[in-house]
Formats: sequence, structure tokens, C-alpha cells
Amino acid sequence: MKENKIIEQLKQQCPDNASVKLGIGDDSAVLNPSDREQLVCADMLMEGVHFILDSHNVEKIGHKALAVNLSDIAAMGGEALSAYICLALPRSHAESRFMERLYSGFSSLAQRFQVAIAGGDTNIWEGPLVISVTVVGAVHPKGAVTRRGARVGDVIMVTGELGGSIEGHHLDFTPRLAEARILMDGYKLHSMIDVSDGLGKDLRDICRQSGVAASLDPELLPLRGPLLKMPRAEAQQRALSDGEDFELCFTLSEKEAERLEARRDISCHRIGRIIAGEGLYWGHNEKTWEPIHVQGYEH
Amino acid sequence: MKENKIIEQLKQQCPDNASVKLGIGDDSAVLNPSDREQLVCADMLMEGVHFILDSHNVEKIGHKALAVNLSDIAAMGGEALSAYICLALPRSHAESRFMERLYSGFSSLAQRFQVAIAGGDTNIWEGPLVISVTVVGAVHPKGAVTRRGARVGDVIMVTGELGGSIEGHHLDFTPRLAEARILMDGYKLHSMIDVSDGLGKDLRDICRQSGVAASLDPELLPLRGPLLKMPRAEAQQRALSDGEDFELCFTLSEKEAERLEARRDISCHRIGRIIAGEGLYWGHNEKTWEPIHVQGYEH
Repeated sequence: MKENKIIEQLKQQCPDNASVKLGIGDDSAVLNPSDREQLVCADMLMEGVHFILDSHNVEKIGHKALAVNLSDIAAMGGEALSAYICLALPRSHAESRFMERLYSGFSSLAQRFQVAIAGGDTNIWEGPLVISVTVVGAVHPKGAVTRRGARVGDVIMVTGELGGSIEGHHLDFTPRLAEARILMDGYKLHSMIDVSDGLGKDLRDICRQSGVAASLDPELLPLRGPLLKMPRAEAQQRALSDGEDFELCFTLSEKEAERLEARRDISCHRIGRIIAGEGLYWGHNEKTWEPIHVQGYEH
Repeated sequence: MKENKIIEQLKQQCPDNASVKLGIGDDSAVLNPSDREQLVCADMLMEGVHFILDSHNVEKIGHKALAVNLSDIAAMGGEALSAYICLALPRSHAESRFMERLYSGFSSLAQRFQVAIAGGDTNIWEGPLVISVTVVGAVHPKGAVTRRGARVGDVIMVTGELGGSIEGHHLDFTPRLAEARILMDGYKLHSMIDVSDGLGKDLRDICRQSGVAASLDPELLPLRGPLLKMPRAEAQQRALSDGEDFELCFTLSEKEAERLEARRDISCHRIGRIIAGEGLYWGHNEKTWEPIHVQGYEH
């Protein structure tokens, strides 16, 4: 099957929106001007590293490739507008049924969050499946939240649960765009990241970029299903170092955190506090702090 | 060598510009608002398809991966602003010398056209090298030129020369951003495309999208160096069907074409004319038209 025939067919499946003036079919997409700052993120997923082509559901592979990018937009507190999908497609899979299923994974997630699929590049080769997605978004009217703004005294919170994502969550998670919107609309966040390399590694990056440290209460880490059967200490370690949670980890003042905790319509958990210094610590209070030595998740 | 260490090191090599508010190092790049329409294009290059890792110069591989995208921005008549580079890097090449050379290919081209490198994703795996680049640009103040605007009577022109790119041009070509700027500033273009799949295939797409046909004069096709030694008919066929020329093919009125031909500071060649109908034809005048059956280049 020829590349352009595949593309022509898939174009029908791709959602559109008002941010896109000209989508798939020309040398570049044309986007309407924006008076808000724009966000751009790009993530590549590779067979055997981020998914297993022969055992994972194809729709879920497509879903994941777009979802990891939407998670990056959520982590800036933004809104996703358009996606660009590049594929290196194994010749053995260059047939319309496979492409339809893969694109159905992209499209249903895109439709759910009103993201246009506005371009990309489809190639056929003898190698494994590689999917590279770029997403363009816009910041919230309040601006972007970065990794640089954490302040000593901030409460550290996460959405959802942590750890054990490899059991299935990493393939069908919902990127936290709706939660990001609620947080941005109602609260003043100081810093935010999405947990992709493991809480320990990602929170360490917030600390490094903000020039602060963090203490985590192991008893407060919200554990995802697969961890609940494990010995508690092991589960806590996994919640800290497993990757691909794609939850939001953010920091905000004690007062804002209390307001947020009073809500019932968003799942957020307080897990620790930003402190002065460098690095990560376990402990409820200053006397019990112990440095955390953790390797984040390597895919 | 760890991914984040490589990234930290490469960040130093990446040029910046005023379109980027926040570049490499967060979940997404943040771009300043723009009152012009934005352009977004994405192209993926794969080892063994678009380049040969063991025999091609590494800097040139990096150059090409960015250049094919800049060529897409040029084809819309636009200006390139920022680039996002995703890599699937073979473990055997995940060392700093290789990455420095690859990035030196990206960076020197980016610097030349004042394009910021503002994000991306570096992964290590056991597979071949895959490079996926997205470029964000802005349209010319006059707007974007698409594939849809060719009119019956238009002159068809190309920049530079055609054919034989495989001999080296495809790895070190200069994307036609400067030419696109001259053309946009001074002339009214009706349609434009960059010649990546071969003139025949790409011009056919202008015709299809514009609802017109094209007649080409074989004697007018500008032949790139490697074709000059060949029998003339073979060379003309190659100029029509070889791919990866990355020249601009555009259409404009006879009057505008004559104005352009009078200039000495830009290499443009008249190669044919837009006619009513469907498809491509060889011939100087209506009596000698013969349909062209041509397969474009498949990488």
C-alpha cells in the first residue's frame, strides 16, 4: 500500500478545530494567530521500549503516543490544540487495517480533548514501529506553570496514584488536562511537572530548577492498584521510582493546598513539603529526614 | 551515558531566539504570542531510508533532518522560528562525540537561519537511528502560499536544479528560505511546493489540489550536475522523477514570471505552464502534448 493512499484514507479519521486554518495535505499546517503564549512538546515512542507491538493493543499504542504529549501540555497548565504525528511503520504492518486501528487510538483521544490532528509524516521501512508526536497548545490565561517556581514551605501534591503503571496504566491513562484546568482556574500553583520518569526523578528536577529540596512522607504516597498487595516499604519505593505514571506533581502554598483538599471533584494527594537545601528526603518532620537515593525509571 | 546528561550537554549547543520564551528543560517549550499565522511541519528521517549511518557524514545527517523541515516552511513562503528534535539513538552511538557531531549539524543550520532549537526528546534503544524534527514558523506578512492556488495560464518555475540528488545534494542542500523570502517580498505567487518526492509527483499534487493540469517543456528542465553526462532523454526523465531535490516549484502569472526572470540574484527557471484539465503533459505547445506517466521517488 502506498504512503499517499494511506494518508488520504487517514485524513478522514482526523479531527479538526478552530486553531487550525489549514491541516493535513500541504507542506506545513497553518495555524490561526494566537494572543496567548503557545506551548510545544514532542515525544517519541519506540517499539520494544515504550510498547510491545505484538502483545499490546494497537489502539492503546496510538492512544499512548498522543497521551504522553497531552500530559506534557497539562504539566504546563495549558490546553492542547493540535497534534502532528510522524510514523516509521514496519513494512509488515503497512496495511490499512493496522493503520486504522492505530489512528483510531490517536483520534478518539484527540476528539475527547478537542485536539486537531493537523499534520505529520508517514514512512514505511524495514525497522520497528516508531511514533513521534508533537503537540501545540496554548497556556492558560494565567500563564504557564514551570518547574522553576517551587518555594520553601510549599505543599507537594500529586493527582491520582503512583507506581505499578507497567501493569497497564501506561497504555490507557487519561492525560490530566481536565485536572490541570481545574487547578489553573481555581488555585495559584508555584511549580508543576508530569510524573513520567518516576516521582523521585521528576520531583528532583523541580527541586534542582527551583533551588530547593523536598521532604516526602512515605505514608502519604497514594499507591496505584498493583502496589496494594506488596509489602508497604516496597510499595512506597515503587511509588517513588516507577515511571510512566503521567500524573501531575505540583507545589502550592499551605493555604491553597487546604482549599484544594476541601474539594471532592478532583483526586489530589498531599505527599510532602518543599524545604530549603538540595535533594529529596523521607520523613514526617525535620528530625527524621533521611536522604532518598533513587534512580528514576529508565524506559 | 545517561539521557539527561547528554541533554544537559547538548543544551549548550542549541541556538535561541526571540520567539522562544522558555526552551529546552521543561515539559513543553513556551513561545511568545504571534499576530501572524503560524506554520508547523514535521518530518521523520530513518537510517537506511533517508541516510546511511555508517557511510554518511554525521553532521550532514543532522543537517538534512532539520533542512527537510526548513524546506517545508520555505514551501509555504514562511519564516522558520523554532525546531524540536526527537531522537531514537542506537545504544552503540549514545556517546558524547557522536551526539556533538549530530547536533553540530542541527545547530549550524539553525544558526544560519536564526532558528531556535527549543525542545525534543532523546531516547536510547537497540534499533537504528531515527530523527524526527518538528519546525514551527510564521507565515510571510502576505500570508501562506499553498498547493491549491495554481491558475490556468500560470507559468511554472523552479529554483536551482533538478535530479541526481542522491549523489550528495540530498545531504547538504540549502533549504530555500532566502529564495522564498525574495519571492514573497517581490512577487505574487499562486501556488508553491518543495520538490521532495520528485517534480512529477509534487507538481501533480499542485495540479490535483488546484483542479488544473500542467505541461512541461523537457528542454527547459534545469539539470543538476550528475545528470549532465547522461543521454538527454534519460536526464530529463531523471529530473522529473528523482526525489529529494528540495527546490521550490511555484506558479505565477506570465507578467510576474517575466519580472522575476529579469533578476540576476536568484536562480529560477521557467519549466512549463498550467493548463486546463488533469494530469501532467510533456510538450512545447498544445499540438505536441503527451501525457506523462511518472512514478515519484520512493525513499
